[in-house]
Amino acid sequence: MSTETTGRRRGRRPAGQDTRTALVDAARAVFAENGYDGATVRAIATRAGVDAAMVNHWFGSKEGLFAQAVLELPFSPHELLEALRDGPDDEFGERIVRTFVTRWDGAGGDTFQALVRSIASHEQAGHVLRDFFGKFFTTLISSVGADQVPLRTSLCASQMVGIGMIRYIAKFEPLASADVETLVHAVAPNVQRYLTGDLG
Amino acid sequence: MSTETTGRRRGRRPAGQDTRTALVDAARAVFAENGYDGATVRAIATRAGVDAAMVNHWFGSKEGLFAQAVLELPFSPHELLEALRDGPDDEFGERIVRTFVTRWDGAGGDTFQALVRSIASHEQAGHVLRDFFGKFFTTLISSVGADQVPLRTSLCASQMVGIGMIRYIAKFEPLASADVETLVHAVAPNVQRYLTGDLG
Repeated sequence: MSTETTGRRRGRRPAGQDTRTALVDAARAVFAENGYDGATVRAIATRAGVDAAMVNHWFGSKEGLFAQAVLELPFSPHELLEALRDGPDDEFGERIVRTFVTRWDGAGGDTFQALVRSIASHEQAGHVLRDFFGKFFTTLISSVGADQVPLRTSLCASQMVGIGMIRYIAKFEPLASADVETLVHAVAPNVQRYLTGDLG
Repeated sequence: MSTETTGRRRGRRPAGQDTRTALVDAARAVFAENGYDGATVRAIATRAGVDAAMVNHWFGSKEGLFAQAVLELPFSPHELLEALRDGPDDEFGERIVRTFVTRWDGAGGDTFQALVRSIASHEQAGHVLRDFFGKFFTTLISSVGADQVPLRTSLCASQMVGIGMIRYIAKFEPLASADVETLVHAVAPNVQRYLTGDLG
């Protein structure tokens, strides 16, 4: 069997992308009309003319759909989770720094700017981001078996959001132009301490 | 001699505060009319009806005046520098975390929100903040004698801006409600590594 017929990536054919696009458009409309809490997966799927199961397939959850349709994050939480999980626990900090900076860089900083603009302007966005990143990182950080997971999660968030602010928004040098591996060496040990170290 | 007549704090009498207020008002008008680069200390002092030396006395520089008049930071860079310098080098990270979080908390998070709004909305503010914090922290960090001062400076900025974003803007728990000393224990070793540690 060739990978072309058996590979899991077959799901990304144009017809699938149409479903995804229809869901993004419907989600923007429904979130705008009903707010985050009032918007249901069923209402969004109905508006898009697709089965509600497609939301889970493409976005994982309502949070994931919000993250991509409204906050315009260019990746699915699912993909990201896989990229971060795959490797030894003591290189977890390294994977977090490398993965986020590489993805943010790939979007030319737009992703990160959209994130900050959302947080700064909508109370709702702050709320959903908290929920979204809270659940996401709690799952992830629990997997290394550390105590104080919520504190570790919010400390990691502080370092990664700070890197984004300085690199893409305030543009302080040399951090703004440093290559990814320079940042990984400089920042990863700090993120690793937040994940598994002694927090005092 | 009593401290009342000899103390350096005598400069903070009401007449001095009037001068300071006049300079803040004049600075807002002149920055708005001429932009940051076009605004001169002399023009601001003339508009305020005071001697140009008063700008240095109250704000240290044009950057300091901008930081306080336009960004509404509630402290002078001068004061801050003194608070941070005073103590052993290996507790420098601790002083940075404690001083910034205490001051930001004291302003109920408004200071930090003003900072982010300025950075996110004005290209000019991003520029002056880079200059201002660049000079400020370069002076400070050079005093502990480390190499790679600009990289260390921007890394420290990333961590402190990130703490502000998570504590005051995104409000992720438990970081948003943690007491100052919990944050000092959790974050200071990371800031200390950025100041004096091996960055890879």
